[in-house]
Order: sequence, then C-alpha cells, then structure tokens
Amino acid sequence: MNFFIPEIRSEISLRVERMRPLMREAGIDAVLASTTANLFYLSGRVYKGYVYVALEGEPVWIVIRPDVFDPDPEIVSVRKPEMIPDALGRLGRPLPACLGLEFDEASFSSVARLQNCFPETRFANASPLLDKARMVKTPYEIKAMRRDGVHHVAVYERIEHCYQRDMTDLEFQIEIERLLRREGCIGYPRTRGEMMEINLGSVIYGDNADEPGPYDFTMGGTGIDPSLPLGANGSIMHAGHTVMVDVNGGFNGYQTDMTRTWRIGDVPDITYKAHDCSIRILRALEKMCLPGTRIGDAYTCAEEIVHEEGLGKYFMGHKAQVKFIGHGVGIQLNELPVVMGRNNEVFREGMMIALEPKFVIPGVGSAGVENTYLVTKDGLENLTPFREELSEL
Amino acid sequence: MNFFIPEIRSEISLRVERMRPLMREAGIDAVLASTTANLFYLSGRVYKGYVYVALEGEPVWIVIRPDVFDPDPEIVSVRKPEMIPDALGRLGRPLPACLGLEFDEASFSSVARLQNCFPETRFANASPLLDKARMVKTPYEIKAMRRDGVHHVAVYERIEHCYQRDMTDLEFQIEIERLLRREGCIGYPRTRGEMMEINLGSVIYGDNADEPGPYDFTMGGTGIDPSLPLGANGSIMHAGHTVMVDVNGGFNGYQTDMTRTWRIGDVPDITYKAHDCSIRILRALEKMCLPGTRIGDAYTCAEEIVHEEGLGKYFMGHKAQVKFIGHGVGIQLNELPVVMGRNNEVFREGMMIALEPKFVIPGVGSAGVENTYLVTKDGLENLTPFREELSEL
Repeated sequence: MNFFIPEIRSEISLRVERMRPLMREAGIDAVLASTTANLFYLSGRVYKGYVYVALEGEPVWIVIRPDVFDPDPEIVSVRKPEMIPDALGRLGRPLPACLGLEFDEASFSSVARLQNCFPETRFANASPLLDKARMVKTPYEIKAMRRDGVHHVAVYERIEHCYQRDMTDLEFQIEIERLLRREGCIGYPRTRGEMMEINLGSVIYGDNADEPGPYDFTMGGTGIDPSLPLGANGSIMHAGHTVMVDVNGGFNGYQTDMTRTWRIGDVPDITYKAHDCSIRILRALEKMCLPGTRIGDAYTCAEEIVHEEGLGKYFMGHKAQVKFIGHGVGIQLNELPVVMGRNNEVFREGMMIALEPKFVIPGVGSAGVENTYLVTKDGLENLTPFREELSEL
Repeated sequence: MNFFIPEIRSEISLRVERMRPLMREAGIDAVLASTTANLFYLSGRVYKGYVYVALEGEPVWIVIRPDVFDPDPEIVSVRKPEMIPDALGRLGRPLPACLGLEFDEASFSSVARLQNCFPETRFANASPLLDKARMVKTPYEIKAMRRDGVHHVAVYERIEHCYQRDMTDLEFQIEIERLLRREGCIGYPRTRGEMMEINLGSVIYGDNADEPGPYDFTMGGTGIDPSLPLGANGSIMHAGHTVMVDVNGGFNGYQTDMTRTWRIGDVPDITYKAHDCSIRILRALEKMCLPGTRIGDAYTCAEEIVHEEGLGKYFMGHKAQVKFIGHGVGIQLNELPVVMGRNNEVFREGMMIALEPKFVIPGVGSAGVENTYLVTKDGLENLTPFREELSEL
C-alpha cells in the first residue's frame, strides 16, 4: 500500500507550519494526534495509529493498521502505543518535555494510555490548536472543497426530481440520499463533538421544524426514532408547508454544507418574507466578511437585519432558538469558527464558513438558505452557488 | 415533550439491576453516563445530558437539551455539568465516594470536566461495567432486536432485485442502502470505539475483499476515498467473482448484523467449499453455544472445522487475518463479548451474538454468512433467518 497520495505529501508541510506557531504559543513541543479527522488532516488518509508532529523535523506517521510497506523513513509500524517512544528514539527524535494530546476528541482511556507511555513528559490539550490550524484551509484543501461544492450543487440541481406528490419527508430524503451517494458522497458525515451523530442530513418538513433537538445543529426535528432525534419524521408532505433540505456534501474527506428550502403549494406571506430575509442576510455578509472583520460582527449584522424586518421570534428556531448563524466546515461538518455574537476572532483568508440564517414559521416550516463560503480578500466566495428562491416543489 | 416511551420506563429498573452487582464488584457507588449509547440504554432516548445511577434509589435523568417538561421528579434540567452536584443534592442524593465515568467512550476533556464538578470524589472507569451490563439483553431489548431482524431479512429478500449486469459494487450498495432506509433503517450505525467509522455497511466485491483496512471490522476493502477506507470501491462486477453484502440492520436504536454472499456467474470450486464451511460452522455453533459454554471454545470449534477442511489460509481474511469470528451486538454494532479464542467468559442466556465465519479467496472475493443469534437455553436462535447458499445474482 502506498501510504501517501502524491499530491498530499508536499501539502503536509504547509499544514504542519500552521500548527507550529500555535504549538509554541501553547508551550507544546510535540503533538501526537490519533483521531480520524486529524490523522486525515496530517496524512490524507484514515488509519489506525498516530501522527507525531514536533516543533522541528518531519512528522512521523506511526501506523498500527493496516500494514504499510513504504520506504519513507518517517513511516513506522507499531503494534501498540507503548512502542511509540522507542520508535521515535530509533529515528533520533528526542522525547518532548510537553506533549500535546487530543483531550477534546480522544477518549479518556486512550489519552491516559498515551500519558503512561511517556513517564517523563508533561501533557497539554492539543485539540484547540489543531482546530485552529485546520480553520484556515490550504490550497489543496480549498481545491478539494471546491470539488465538493460542485458535486453538492449537482445533487441540489436534481432534488426537485426526487419529489412526488403525497410522499413523506423521509421518502423524499431517501431519494436525495441516493442522489448524493451516486454523485460520490462517501456516506459518512464526520462531525466534531462526541454526541454529534447524524445520518446523511436533515430534511425538515412543516411543524417538525419546531421540534427542538439535543444536538448543536441549527435545526431540530424528531427523526423517526428516539435513538436519533433529528430531521425527517415520516410525515406526508402537504400543500401550505415548506421542506428544508440540508444534506451532506462529503465527497472526498472534505465537506461543504448547503441548504435550500422548497414550498409545497402556496405558503403564507410571512414565509417568503423570512426566506427573503435569509437571502438578504447572505448578500450583506458576502460583502461584509473580509479578512480582518470581527466574526461576531457578522452575527450582529444578521440580527440587525432580522430585527429591522420584525422577524426576531422566528430567527434560528422558534420554540427553541440557537445563537449562531454559521460555522467553519472542512474535514468535519462543524469546525471553527462559530459565527456567534461573542466571537472576537476575525475572519482570515482561506477560512471556509457555512452561513445558515434560518427561520422557523410555526404551522408552516423552515425558511432560509445556507451556503459554504471561502473567505477571500474581496469578500466571501460562494462554493455552493445554486438558485436560492423559495421554489415550488 | 414526554421524556419516556411508556414501555421503557419500567424496563429501566431491570437494566439498572444488571449494573448494580457490577458496580459493587468495582467499588463504584454511582455511575454518571453521558455517551449516546448509554443514555439510550438507560432512558430509551438520546439527549444531551447524563444519567446518574446510584447503588440505591431511582436513576436521575439530568437533561441539558432539549427542554423537558415532565413532572417526573427524577428528571432534572441543568445548563451545564457544574450544576449536577446541586441538582442531586436537591433530590436528597448523597454525593458518591466513588463515581464511575465512561473513560473508554467519553472524551478526556468531558471526563476531566465532570471530575472537577465532584472535588471530594474518587473516580473509576464505568465503561467496562456498562458494556457488561448491556451484554445480556432484557426482554424489551430482545423484542426490539427481533423486530430489527425481521426488517433486516425483509431487505435481504429484495437485494437480488438491486443487481443489474455491469453495475459497480458501489451502485449495488447504493440501491441496497435505499432499501434499508425505506424499510425504516435510521441511517446511522452506532459503533463502539473512537475510530470505528462506517457508512451503511460493507459491500465487498472480488479482490477488494483482500485489501486490509484500519478498522476492527472483519472485512476490509479500500472504499471510494482514503478518508473512509472500507468496503465498495466502485469496481464493475464481473462473472467469476463474489460479492458479500454486510449492511446495517439498525431500525429502532438496536441493530442486527447479517451477511450474505452472492456469486456473479460461475466461481471456482474452492469458493463453494469455503462458503459451505462457513455454513457448517454456523450449524455447529448454533448447537454448541449454550448458556455456560466458554466463548473461546466457539472460536476453537470454528478453527478446527476450518483446519479439517484445509481452508486455514483463507479464514477471516487472506493477506491480513483477524482472530475473532463474532461479537455481541445491540445498541452498538460491535459490543461484548468478542468471540475469540482467549475469551474465557461463558455464553449467557439473553446475549445477542453476531457470528460471521468468513473467507477471502484471492482472485474471487469473500465467502461466508453472518447471522445474529439470541443465546437461549436450547442453543442459538437465529434472528436473521434467510437463505444462506451461494446463489447467483
């Protein structure tokens, strides 16, 4: 097995160079990453094992499984984590005084096991610095996400053909899932956070939009079973309601995030008003969000537009409202930054942001649009361009 | 929102009674569970929050989200884990001297945060006792899994209709996924272990079966992307090969696990021999595995049959071989016990075991069958009964 996709190998040094200033700032001499998202970030593949990134030198890829036969001296095989210090020693790597481990994503037991492997070492949480490094995408990642957007849009172009009169929201979702998979979606949305479980996305019809869920997603819904209380609940879709389609765009290890809303027959005027307000917010933010703009200001700007339009009580939910309108996206569906009022960080060129100003109109359903944007020096570039109006299904 | 499905509320005391002897044995006074599988086990639903189970008294369901309006005094709302000790105090619960937390499944940070909430308390790993309690299913769980098996079989009955000449393994899988979802599969296979990511299952055709993967699943395959190296890889399916279908049976928070293999045109005799050997192993184990039988002996029995037939080099993989032929199944796809030689535990009535003696024939593909079995006093009861022979697609 060739460990590296050729294009990736040279990219990794870029990614490591994003981590190192953050490591220095945190007083961390080396990071030992072990969770799938960060293994993928630092190698271009998912395997069972670790990546070791010190302040200097090449990373070391420490592989438990599958067996790798690769002459690259920085790829080493181990049977268990207890063999890591010796493997590093054989490569002439000094053991770190302070080792960063993924406290936020790895289990308590696996972190504790790694800690026991390095008896002379101090430990720190490397999750925040990895999250932060991944927040600004590299050229390869931007290319991958552009490709994702193209596939994602190709699916949305065909969603109307999935609809048949009197079908349920779930039947509609299943046909959309089939489109996604035939377009190349890998069928697994990688999320950040230990309880953030989701299937291929969320199709929310009618009043199911007003059912608050347990997750940190913007929209709720009861789902079809209390073991996964999210999204479509099997309701037949009738005229006078909307259906919002927020389904997964993960085609190559990266994801774009995209939502469009359709109406079934006529819907009350307030629905159009809310939907148009969502589009107005996106147009405003596309211009406003420049490198250097405070992220919290984007949220405030959206809130101001909503209040101008008198739509506050429907914004980002109705029975339960969430206090963010967007999030970073990349290897995981929900990355940094979170676009919320109290976020004092600034937008940076190369960030990927999903913006999703949404509304829930009781008795009708959701309204609103979501796009994935690349932050450029001229403003936001939409990676998921597709007709945004509230069309009839 | 009604917190409990009525049928569940009375069941929970049974589940708690399975935990308590194991808690006493481990010197644990109370368990605070927080991961989705154990929340579901102890409440019948997934929510953001915790379940507190002490050696005495009713459990306490501690809910962060969604808002719950339920008069049950044992259901309490908190905004953050730091409020848990006070919430328990208000219910008159003494704080535990030793609190069990889910070290194996919860993140290091979330365990550490909970530890900080109980400054006077010692902590122990509750994951093993929760795994062990869940190993033997309750009557409600057995009923749920029987229902799962019925749906799972209903899908397998229609799999042949998904096949078209010259389609790819992936196209075949996508049509099967659609059947699963239309049959009620929730679309999310909950697994045990931090890197055990999978989409709706594994469809393995031809030599892709001989590509070792990183996961603790029995079969490999490269998948369509290095971010999820598992299963179908997009090969067109040609005569002379097999395709093995091991797709998810999760319909109601529980899962059954089931595999059937089909051939495309004629395949070499060794393939039939291996496939029949898999069936022969299942028939032998169905009689042999009684409550009290050592679990490791089931593995040894399978190995003996394989060696009698001279099929050792194809058993449970070819380039890479795994050393187990089955596993518990329930809320998670891969639960305890693991059916491997060194497992000295015994089968117990009410365990649910997926047995999957499989073979990889180089140049041809996989062979073998998997069923989910309930351990009864008369031997194994098959919850996934369906034609087992190597039929032509």
